[in-house]
Amino acid sequence: MNYIMIVGSIAAACTTLSFLPQAIKVIKTKHTKDLSLEMYSVFVFGVLMWLIYGILLGELPIIIANVVTLVLASVILGFKIKYK
Amino acid sequence: MNYIMIVGSIAAACTTLSFLPQAIKVIKTKHTKDLSLEMYSVFVFGVLMWLIYGILLGELPIIIANVVTLVLASVILGFKIKYK
Repeated sequence: MNYIMIVGSIAAACTTLSFLPQAIKVIKTKHTKDLSLEMYSVFVFGVLMWLIYGILLGELPIIIANVVTLVLASVILGFKIKYK
Repeated sequence: MNYIMIVGSIAAACTTLSFLPQAIKVIKTKHTKDLSLEMYSVFVFGVLMWLIYGILLGELPIIIANVVTLVLASVILGFKIKYK
């Protein structure tokens, strides 16, 4: 693995796992007023498109990263819709 | 441009621009209590890594998408730090 792949892997891990503390926060507090419904609607759709893109390319890293992000962002979106 | 590239372009546009309504919301309301500081800290760092990855690869689409996301997510993080 060369250094460019290491930078890419760190990038993917950070942008994917960053949604975990936000998901935990909304699950714990059920407070979602300051979150943008538009953001999470468009973002979840976009991540779904990334997942389809990964499946079409057969690229497992893209598929795994986007499945994780899709689950976390969908939880946040679900709480935003339920407790807005 | 084949259909896989079209799916990828839609994905990139959605996940990049999704942060715009959240940035507008925090600028207007200055309310950031429900946003996770951990999320935006790790996310901004991750997007910076994606930007460096794009520069190392010389891939302009990765560079452009991540510059836009970095600006939007940094605005949100800045407001979160200032108005927490």
